[in-house]
Amino acid sequence: ATRKSPSDSAANMALLEEILGPHPEGTFAARHVGPREGDQKDMLKYLGYQAMEDFIRDTVPQSIRLRRPLRLPEPMSESELTALAQRTASENDLWKSYIGLGYHACHVPQAIFRNIFENPGWTTQYTPYQPEISQGRLEGLLNYQTMVTELTGKPVANASLLDEGTAAAEAMALCVRQTRRTRFVASTRVHPQTLAVLRTRASDMGITLDVRAVQFMDFESKDIAGVLYQYPDTEGKVKDFSELIDKAHKNGALVCCASDLLALTLLKPPGEMGADIVFGNSQRLGIPIGFGGPHAAFFACSESLVRLMPGRMVGVSIDSSGKTALRLALQTREQHIRRDKATSNICTAQALLANMSGMYAVYHGPRGLKRIAERAHNNALLVVEAAEVVGHVPQSTLFFDTIKIRPSEAFPQESIRQRAEEKKINLRYYDDGGVGISSNETMSQGDLQDLLWTLGCRFTLDELAARHGKDAIGRRISDSPLARTSKFMQQPIFNKYHSEAQIVRYMKQLENKDVSLVHSMIPLGSCTMKLNATSEMVPCSLPGFANLHPFVPIDQAAGYQRIFRDLDEYLCEITGFEHISLQPNSGAQGEFAGLTTIKKYLAAIGEVKRDICLIPTSAHGTNPASAQMAGMKVEPVQVKKDGCIDFDDLKKKVERFSDRLACLMVTYPSTNGIFEEGIETMCDLIHSAGGQVYLDGANMNAQVGLCRPGDYGADVCHLNLHKTFCIPHGGGGPGMGPIGVKNHLGPYLPSHTLVKMEQYHGSVAPTSGAVSSAPFGSPLILPISWAYIRMMGADGLRKATEVAMLNANYMAKRLEPFYKCLFRGHLGNVAHEFILDVRPFKKTAGIDVADIAKRLQDYGFHGPTMSWPVTGCLMIEPTESEDKAELDRLCDALIGIREEIAAIEKGAMDSERNPLKLAPHPLSDVCCSEWNRPYSREIAAFPAPFVRPETKVWPTVGRLDDKFGDRNLVCSCPSMDEYSTSSSNSSDDEASCAM
Amino acid sequence: ATRKSPSDSAANMALLEEILGPHPEGTFAARHVGPREGDQKDMLKYLGYQAMEDFIRDTVPQSIRLRRPLRLPEPMSESELTALAQRTASENDLWKSYIGLGYHACHVPQAIFRNIFENPGWTTQYTPYQPEISQGRLEGLLNYQTMVTELTGKPVANASLLDEGTAAAEAMALCVRQTRRTRFVASTRVHPQTLAVLRTRASDMGITLDVRAVQFMDFESKDIAGVLYQYPDTEGKVKDFSELIDKAHKNGALVCCASDLLALTLLKPPGEMGADIVFGNSQRLGIPIGFGGPHAAFFACSESLVRLMPGRMVGVSIDSSGKTALRLALQTREQHIRRDKATSNICTAQALLANMSGMYAVYHGPRGLKRIAERAHNNALLVVEAAEVVGHVPQSTLFFDTIKIRPSEAFPQESIRQRAEEKKINLRYYDDGGVGISSNETMSQGDLQDLLWTLGCRFTLDELAARHGKDAIGRRISDSPLARTSKFMQQPIFNKYHSEAQIVRYMKQLENKDVSLVHSMIPLGSCTMKLNATSEMVPCSLPGFANLHPFVPIDQAAGYQRIFRDLDEYLCEITGFEHISLQPNSGAQGEFAGLTTIKKYLAAIGEVKRDICLIPTSAHGTNPASAQMAGMKVEPVQVKKDGCIDFDDLKKKVERFSDRLACLMVTYPSTNGIFEEGIETMCDLIHSAGGQVYLDGANMNAQVGLCRPGDYGADVCHLNLHKTFCIPHGGGGPGMGPIGVKNHLGPYLPSHTLVKMEQYHGSVAPTSGAVSSAPFGSPLILPISWAYIRMMGADGLRKATEVAMLNANYMAKRLEPFYKCLFRGHLGNVAHEFILDVRPFKKTAGIDVADIAKRLQDYGFHGPTMSWPVTGCLMIEPTESEDKAELDRLCDALIGIREEIAAIEKGAMDSERNPLKLAPHPLSDVCCSEWNRPYSREIAAFPAPFVRPETKVWPTVGRLDDKFGDRNLVCSCPSMDEYSTSSSNSSDDEASCAM
Repeated sequence: ATRKSPSDSAANMALLEEILGPHPEGTFAARHVGPREGDQKDMLKYLGYQAMEDFIRDTVPQSIRLRRPLRLPEPMSESELTALAQRTASENDLWKSYIGLGYHACHVPQAIFRNIFENPGWTTQYTPYQPEISQGRLEGLLNYQTMVTELTGKPVANASLLDEGTAAAEAMALCVRQTRRTRFVASTRVHPQTLAVLRTRASDMGITLDVRAVQFMDFESKDIAGVLYQYPDTEGKVKDFSELIDKAHKNGALVCCASDLLALTLLKPPGEMGADIVFGNSQRLGIPIGFGGPHAAFFACSESLVRLMPGRMVGVSIDSSGKTALRLALQTREQHIRRDKATSNICTAQALLANMSGMYAVYHGPRGLKRIAERAHNNALLVVEAAEVVGHVPQSTLFFDTIKIRPSEAFPQESIRQRAEEKKINLRYYDDGGVGISSNETMSQGDLQDLLWTLGCRFTLDELAARHGKDAIGRRISDSPLARTSKFMQQPIFNKYHSEAQIVRYMKQLENKDVSLVHSMIPLGSCTMKLNATSEMVPCSLPGFANLHPFVPIDQAAGYQRIFRDLDEYLCEITGFEHISLQPNSGAQGEFAGLTTIKKYLAAIGEVKRDICLIPTSAHGTNPASAQMAGMKVEPVQVKKDGCIDFDDLKKKVERFSDRLACLMVTYPSTNGIFEEGIETMCDLIHSAGGQVYLDGANMNAQVGLCRPGDYGADVCHLNLHKTFCIPHGGGGPGMGPIGVKNHLGPYLPSHTLVKMEQYHGSVAPTSGAVSSAPFGSPLILPISWAYIRMMGADGLRKATEVAMLNANYMAKRLEPFYKCLFRGHLGNVAHEFILDVRPFKKTAGIDVADIAKRLQDYGFHGPTMSWPVTGCLMIEPTESEDKAELDRLCDALIGIREEIAAIEKGAMDSERNPLKLAPHPLSDVCCSEWNRPYSREIAAFPAPFVRPETKVWPTVGRLDDKFGDRNLVCSCPSMDEYSTSSSNSSDDEASCAM
Repeated sequence: ATRKSPSDSAANMALLEEILGPHPEGTFAARHVGPREGDQKDMLKYLGYQAMEDFIRDTVPQSIRLRRPLRLPEPMSESELTALAQRTASENDLWKSYIGLGYHACHVPQAIFRNIFENPGWTTQYTPYQPEISQGRLEGLLNYQTMVTELTGKPVANASLLDEGTAAAEAMALCVRQTRRTRFVASTRVHPQTLAVLRTRASDMGITLDVRAVQFMDFESKDIAGVLYQYPDTEGKVKDFSELIDKAHKNGALVCCASDLLALTLLKPPGEMGADIVFGNSQRLGIPIGFGGPHAAFFACSESLVRLMPGRMVGVSIDSSGKTALRLALQTREQHIRRDKATSNICTAQALLANMSGMYAVYHGPRGLKRIAERAHNNALLVVEAAEVVGHVPQSTLFFDTIKIRPSEAFPQESIRQRAEEKKINLRYYDDGGVGISSNETMSQGDLQDLLWTLGCRFTLDELAARHGKDAIGRRISDSPLARTSKFMQQPIFNKYHSEAQIVRYMKQLENKDVSLVHSMIPLGSCTMKLNATSEMVPCSLPGFANLHPFVPIDQAAGYQRIFRDLDEYLCEITGFEHISLQPNSGAQGEFAGLTTIKKYLAAIGEVKRDICLIPTSAHGTNPASAQMAGMKVEPVQVKKDGCIDFDDLKKKVERFSDRLACLMVTYPSTNGIFEEGIETMCDLIHSAGGQVYLDGANMNAQVGLCRPGDYGADVCHLNLHKTFCIPHGGGGPGMGPIGVKNHLGPYLPSHTLVKMEQYHGSVAPTSGAVSSAPFGSPLILPISWAYIRMMGADGLRKATEVAMLNANYMAKRLEPFYKCLFRGHLGNVAHEFILDVRPFKKTAGIDVADIAKRLQDYGFHGPTMSWPVTGCLMIEPTESEDKAELDRLCDALIGIREEIAAIEKGAMDSERNPLKLAPHPLSDVCCSEWNRPYSREIAAFPAPFVRPETKVWPTVGRLDDKFGDRNLVCSCPSMDEYSTSSSNSSDDEASCAM
């Protein structure tokens, strides 16, 4: 053959592709996007447009449009992606990691992993704000809370926090708030990554943080808000801190204890010693390490602190018919409404992981958990004996699973490290020459033998047992004064589902009580409940991603490195930024990280005075809370009646605070769901006044491929990967909130105390403090977003954005004759979501927003966002993944409800005893012989032709009574005693622990 | 250290294990077995026993007891097993296989794989004999049937058969039965493994099978029952057989066509040419190859043959309120009741795989399937061009995806093979020097390029396209006279769920209509619906097991080899046999294989006359059917009133047929659920008369670890791996029915025409014919049983058997005051199942067995086995996996029902309008305003305290009207036309295709 020219080759390739025809799997985009091409045409026509581009032109301001396609790799098919994910996962080299530091290998029960972690019925649930269709996960989380209270010895616990580091920061903030003091002391033997997160938070919040030896400190100065110790500590030592606690209390300080739930099955719990707050990571209760997350951090405290406790808490209450029912308790707690006075911006949790850890406790029960703990402990006992044989000196006499040794001179750290590397073992190497070894229950005898050899011990394991077994047994916790003597987890729920058939049925019962994306659309405005495709989820199960310790040397993490670099590149291209930090593990954390970055930058250029953060009054509550946490002063900017920022007021504020202006924090498209005109002008205004622009990227789903925050003036933006980039909501977490920044801010991104961030994603060395325990937040779920972008490609992503807006506008128009759409852009279109004004019905029919949301449950739908951003209104975001038929069903439901309201208005329906006020209608009501309502059972339960008995998903309880529950706060399962003497509701032996 | 002696070492090891404590995961056996140790003690006490061994002594005859523990490997923990399975799977070397022969790589949609194949809500369903709680999978199977009819062009199809080979044998048998002729002709260009299965069956059934070129044959002799051709044929050729079909029909012969559903999206369907029966493998529609299975074989035929069609068929009927509802149609067809006159022993299907393939069609729709087919075809077109460039000669001008080439002399088969091996490519190498290449849609351009190089073509792919692209296009099927012109799959169901959100919701809707083991126990007597543990299922998803072609060279299948050898060893030890054949892919196939083995053995030792098979009248209907198929004459042996075999009658029959006695076929413990005394004596009697003993191993779950068929006299035994060894039932398949045999029968086990069996599992070379298409039946599910045995170990398996019997006896005793237990062993115990005599209620209250089974649905339970083995009775098998609380609930339900019967007896309840006669009560009835029954809604739907609105699983339709459906047989989804004009039942656009 003659040599061909490049252009020949391109033509040939095109010809080849023509011969081969389209990809046999079709495009992934066509699976992700709901409406078929024909439907899209019909919907455009309905809106009065010929082509998508015409529609977009009227929706997104021309001035900010990206005028080229995104530069992203060609889209991959699902099978290509799956193969690439497998190859990438296998590039992570799985050594045995005995590094500890809060992350431990554990056996993840397959039954729980497959039926919760890999089950969209659990992963695609939304936060349980609509408790009537969320009783399953609420019960799961109540089990988790109960386990935490039992193990920690504290009476109340929340339904999880993001990670141990932020839990520590929340504990510190709580102490400061409760005591109104600003000095906080933390032990040097708290995990270094926890201390790093504390330092960041303390610095921003103006708290004086002392890191020191705490055991014998005094509190005479009486200015200490709280003290934090770790138990067992980061080096593995187990000490009695009772005296410290006494002293602290006597001097008005609170005591926080970072701990390990597994250890607390054997050790006297901190709660019994008097600690006020106990927190930590529950990863080792059945969650894969996942290179650092996601895992559920636990947080327990005294009754007296419960109303200050951060995060969500499940509580027991009653429903409309007086039956026991669960819901998120104390939703009206101060941090939710304090906004710019908040001390926490926490608004999410790690619900999926908390549910798994809770289920792990249900499956193993107290005896099982103890057996697991004992194996980890016994392994450590043998390791210590082996170390002593060689002449290494253990640094503690009482320990659980972790030990620090001072190596013998004949066999120093370097010798140990060489042998460890030969055996592919990771240990913790201290700067002082010490070596840390954290045992766990998964170690086989072969693993132990390898470890003996690594330490230089020439015995075989059984020889060691023969010679030093008695010594080992002699060191057991059980014979020490700190042995746990109290029983735990005696509640029935932890003592009945120990066979696989039982646990699987229990999980299924809970799953089937809850509405998730496997049932119907969840039109939560601002939450972007789009498809979480199976091919995106599959990589998270791969051992190469799931089983890596976060602090392994970088060459063992080549697979993750590739994911991070790819994501960096893609997210930079999508947003128009130059650097990405993948560390923040929630949107709110992203806000905090972004503002901290701005603050550090301003300090670096000598503008320390700048501390004013301008925030429109329509902003999400986390915005001012994050600004507050970052040590900025919040100044509100007014919003006009049309929902847009009052530019005049903005100008006024900028002028007034010109010297002190740190930044503008703005959501775009706005929280009202519209693309405001003039965002560039606003950004210019801020910049010309020396400020920075923080863009809240919650609404990125309306922008991808069409416009880029970096292009129109933003300096920082966080991305909710669990919204726009397909990480499932998991019933209230995990999420991820990475931030993108312009070049000048790159050096001020979050860093990590144990890991050099820049070596992973090849950006400049970041210098700010850490905002998460793990360097990359929750890496195990990052392949989801990576897979989404790889499979969609530039065209697919743009199409998704377009259809997201098309769907919203289609619904808005269909509903127009029935509901007022509160805000529209200046050409009449909404962006990707819209607000229905239902406030007038309060006057005309006594119907409020909750009545409508509850009534939607009867139609099989999860209610839209209620009362946010506008009190008393509904915000609907359909996302691009919903097809036209589903949109029409939701419209029909809302129209049906409007007709019911009209009937009340006309007096044809009773103003109190109507299907809205009495919604939702659980099966127990509708199947009951007694039915004395002025409307039929059919109207109650089957109000539309598409709601059919054979497929309907029912609310399992009637409307929740929140006030009752908050007045009678119960946040854990009843104990065995209470159980046996409790009311008739719980007489049935099938009753859940909640009942 | 001094050298230690072995005994020191053992003592040291024991000490070590004492120090380490119990395994942190606990034993798997404790997860598998339902009742906790304490519960077991309580239950033994209830039965009057102190210890388990006392109970067993009264249950299993001492004379046959195994007096030592089984010799099996130490039990592994779940995590150890998972790791071992991963290592084993990775020992299979995954080359690219273009071998064809009916097995093709395909893209398995992740959404379907995870939500059906990996979802216990689908895998643990039972066969849909209780249609009211099975509408989901019935709809899935109806979709499958509809797809098959549409693609084949035949009006009716069944819900799948076991594999292509047995489907061919069934087609042959149907032709013979319909025409009453005994000569059958098959084309030489049918897949060789299909021909092999045909040969076995023909030989046993006395059919004369001619294998020859068929296209131009004549039928003048008028003695031909049928002719079989393949289209496209095994070498890939596509020919028009219209003339053959005409000739055959003119001469009274039927025409069978083996085909490929994917090819039929492009090719004129055989049905349109007049073929009477069209069958084949539907694997390539979204099912992993799995080394040969399980996949669903499809089978379609003319209306006139429907009542002879083998296998299960889903049909449309109505329920008690006249609404459309689905159920298995024509259950009373002759083969189900012909027993010893049967021409088929088919009683199961591949429901799980058929559901997956049907869902694949729903997901892709007609356009998607065509796109997939076109890519496979286009790839083949390019391969053929490349071959011609090199001088290889393609052996056909019209082809779909498969081509046979005659290699050029310059580049012969051996050269191609060398290059193929270098690239890790498997091709089909013909004995005549030809090379077969089967393209598929998963081939990347890189794969094609590798194939070009392998064939000796020096062009790059794009060069080839440039030079020969037009020629390639010119060969397209679309331009040939055999191009498909008819539309297919225009039904709404195939044209509405094409986004992932939609298909996931559709699958979940179907899943949630059905009762499976994730909801409650399924006490099916003789079906052993035990736990199918997640850790057993996980290996089936591993690519190393899932993606291997069955005809790869053995060195690529080292992982499977290990599984087969292990299973061989374990099953031999468990049964007391010397050889195992893993080929039969159902229990009935196992029976046939076992009897064939006996027959071949008898022939080999010169005892050709021996053709009598003695079968007790209490036997399962497949027993005589299998004997009939194996060419034996069935002689019934009487059963006494106490349920035991009438030994006198047996002796009489043995004497009478002494010269002709081939074997006794006996189930043990008996189908009546008891360990009869004297089984060894019976076996001795048979042996002394020169016969063999075939033991039906359906009840092996009462024997494992306690007694062994090989020890007490059986020569052959089949094992239902889907009963005793934990393969889930999948809603009616897959199953596996391997057989164990004594040493003398080893050489007569099934062989395979393409694979030397002995190289895989190291037994003697088998010489009998094949009974399945794939050498090892359905290998992908064998790791399930392997994992079960590995994790249970000898003690665990024995414990499982003991508890299975304990559970049965506990229930039998609890129910004793309410129901008569029909048969008991001579010491008063039942084995692992028991029969409740409910016949008297017919007279006393007009209540029959179906009324009770239907009423149990209202209690949330799947009914027990009805009318088998005793008409009008119920047989209950709880299995060891159910815990005491679940057993008690079922007892309470049955006792509640007995009380309702008593109320009817006393006249307190109406004899017609009572909750039993009107059971089950679907939600649509109970929620309806109209309620004019003489009992309350609560009695209808919540008849026990444990049946609660928030967790109840409802029947989705009222009681099925079988007769209506059989009179008005509809076995596919209505077409678009029918759809738009159909009755009010289907006016709703949400209506399933069934409605």
